[in-house]
Amino acid sequence: MPNVASNPVKLAVIPGDGIGPEVVAEALKVLDAVTADSDVTFEKTEYRLGAGRFLDDGEVLPAAEFEEIKKADAILLGAVGGKPNDPRLANANIERGLLLKLRFELDHYVNLRPTVVYPTVESPLKNPGEVDFVVVREGTEGPYVGNGGSIRIGTPAEVANEVSVNTAYGVERVVRFAFAQASARRKKLTLVHKTNVLVFAGKLWRRIVDQVSAEFPEVEVDYLHVDAATIFLVTDPARFDVIVTDNLFGDILTDLAGAISGGIGLAASGNINPDGTFPSMFEPVHGSAPDIAGQQIADPTAAILSVALLLSHLGLADASAKVTAAVQRDLASRSGARSTAQVGDSIVSLLN
Amino acid sequence: MPNVASNPVKLAVIPGDGIGPEVVAEALKVLDAVTADSDVTFEKTEYRLGAGRFLDDGEVLPAAEFEEIKKADAILLGAVGGKPNDPRLANANIERGLLLKLRFELDHYVNLRPTVVYPTVESPLKNPGEVDFVVVREGTEGPYVGNGGSIRIGTPAEVANEVSVNTAYGVERVVRFAFAQASARRKKLTLVHKTNVLVFAGKLWRRIVDQVSAEFPEVEVDYLHVDAATIFLVTDPARFDVIVTDNLFGDILTDLAGAISGGIGLAASGNINPDGTFPSMFEPVHGSAPDIAGQQIADPTAAILSVALLLSHLGLADASAKVTAAVQRDLASRSGARSTAQVGDSIVSLLN
Ligand SMILES: CC(C)[C@H](C(=O)O)[C@@H](O)C(=O)O
Ligand SMILES: CC(C)[C@H](C(=O)O)[C@@H](O)C(=O)O
Repeated sequence: MPNVASNPVKLAVIPGDGIGPEVVAEALKVLDAVTADSDVTFEKTEYRLGAGRFLDDGEVLPAAEFEEIKKADAILLGAVGGKPNDPRLANANIERGLLLKLRFELDHYVNLRPTVVYPTVESPLKNPGEVDFVVVREGTEGPYVGNGGSIRIGTPAEVANEVSVNTAYGVERVVRFAFAQASARRKKLTLVHKTNVLVFAGKLWRRIVDQVSAEFPEVEVDYLHVDAATIFLVTDPARFDVIVTDNLFGDILTDLAGAISGGIGLAASGNINPDGTFPSMFEPVHGSAPDIAGQQIADPTAAILSVALLLSHLGLADASAKVTAAVQRDLASRSGARSTAQVGDSIVSLLN
Repeated sequence: MPNVASNPVKLAVIPGDGIGPEVVAEALKVLDAVTADSDVTFEKTEYRLGAGRFLDDGEVLPAAEFEEIKKADAILLGAVGGKPNDPRLANANIERGLLLKLRFELDHYVNLRPTVVYPTVESPLKNPGEVDFVVVREGTEGPYVGNGGSIRIGTPAEVANEVSVNTAYGVERVVRFAFAQASARRKKLTLVHKTNVLVFAGKLWRRIVDQVSAEFPEVEVDYLHVDAATIFLVTDPARFDVIVTDNLFGDILTDLAGAISGGIGLAASGNINPDGTFPSMFEPVHGSAPDIAGQQIADPTAAILSVALLLSHLGLADASAKVTAAVQRDLASRSGARSTAQVGDSIVSLLN
């Protein structure tokens, strides 16, 4: 399902805000190192987008730059977003105008978020067990569509609605992707939803899962309400193989999954357009963390693991495996505080 | 804010399905014991409602019984719901037709869910710290309103929508309740939402919190996105005092909170109508667990702690405190497997 890489690979790089540029620098260091001896070259173009850019010139995602990005083979994004309470950003919403716009317009209908608890990493859980699952989060529908509105704004009679839109078209393609993942892994798929309350969307998700399940008889299917799923993520996360879920539930579950697997500093993600119509985008699950920006204390591992996902998506399976292995070796040997660049250097030195 | 008890107190009891009747039996044992020497008497009327009743005669909540329940002073509910995949229940939805109907029609706009990690209880977290917070979950709005629909059902062109409805009226009353709780506790309130994505509902929640905050200058206000909130619930749950949030986020966070505090077998809840227009309803957060029903292995503690919430709501603060203290003593002395009734008996014996 990943595309075979075109050569050279046109890579759009969006370092973004806060710790974004710092972690992206390390991710690119690793990308360069792991592909140095290969036939594939990466042609990188940097786009300065995010809260910083908006504060400079009021632009969030200018049309010309967006057109260029659309023509890239893949995108690497650090993190976007300014200080939460910056009054100058009050009416900006960089998340909707940039990050979600990229995900929606580039039809990133699969948001792929693997979780592995590496033995040497500190989990807040006493006994995480052998955790290795992947969340396949729908990326273009659900409560994220921006289909809402308010009336009588600012008055005691205000009403604000948010519509979750779910289509058979949208659910089926992500569910089929999730089944294919499960089939190539431990053959267990868990649908997470809230079918007892969100009955209309719930019935659609269940029907599609039942239907696609017929094409993958080898995959065992399970169902959990989202509330129950959070319980199992802390009491028995090892039970999961592939979780398929909607955009909002996926957002919540993957932050929790990041936390139990030793922190959001390790959680990578791919916003994938499996059809190859548009470039896929790889980014750490963490945010821009403006409070620690510029101090070289952010962990670049999530960004580096996002490069592993990117390489795998481009069909460069060997290079991807090398990056993952180097990260594992680095995690096994961690001790003491290191700068962002030191972590990147260490991972580069552990590539082989 | 709780009503002063009318005497006798008319208590509607809905044991429900699965382990419901077993845990309710113990809860009533404790209620009887703790009020035995007081002036207050409880006049209990049992209503057989739930999946079992539906399978018997097709009724979910008959009008006549509902009218009686509305006239009660309070409701104690065990748990409702049949086996998840029972085909005879496929079109029933006991949750919407019974549980949510009670919450909505009895205007239970506060869903109060305290979380305490008792020192003697096993948490899945390595270092939970001193956890003592309460989630004030909105109970009558949000994505729970049942305002959705589907078109082209069963076809590849199906669209299923779910609407989250949020009103200034509904948000303000629950936010004010939450501030009052915070003011009487450690004076810290955290709004949990997803304002960067659900911008219409998010703006309403933030505006109302800002507004009501002016009435409670002593309460410090914090904000977290729901995804970040799940991270803190496993990495630093001790930071929370009062969380106020919408119906769906509250559902998710309180199951997670139950899990980190030693299991959903200890989590109690009150569905409260603070205005006293309708009876409030007290229930364990856990479900009917049909797989372990009738075996006397369910932990009745959550149901018993729900009785403590009920007593406090009725203005019987002393009796409420006695139940909580007895539960704490029981938790401190737990060892080996005990039957549901043995746990109830132990707690009764530890009342004083
Ligand atoms: C920043 C925000 C819009 C985003 C989301 O909600 O998807 C983030 O939380 C994530 O998970 O990538
Ligand atoms: C049974 C279900 C409808 C209910 C809810 O979603 O509110 C339950 O999960 C709860 O938290 O009380």
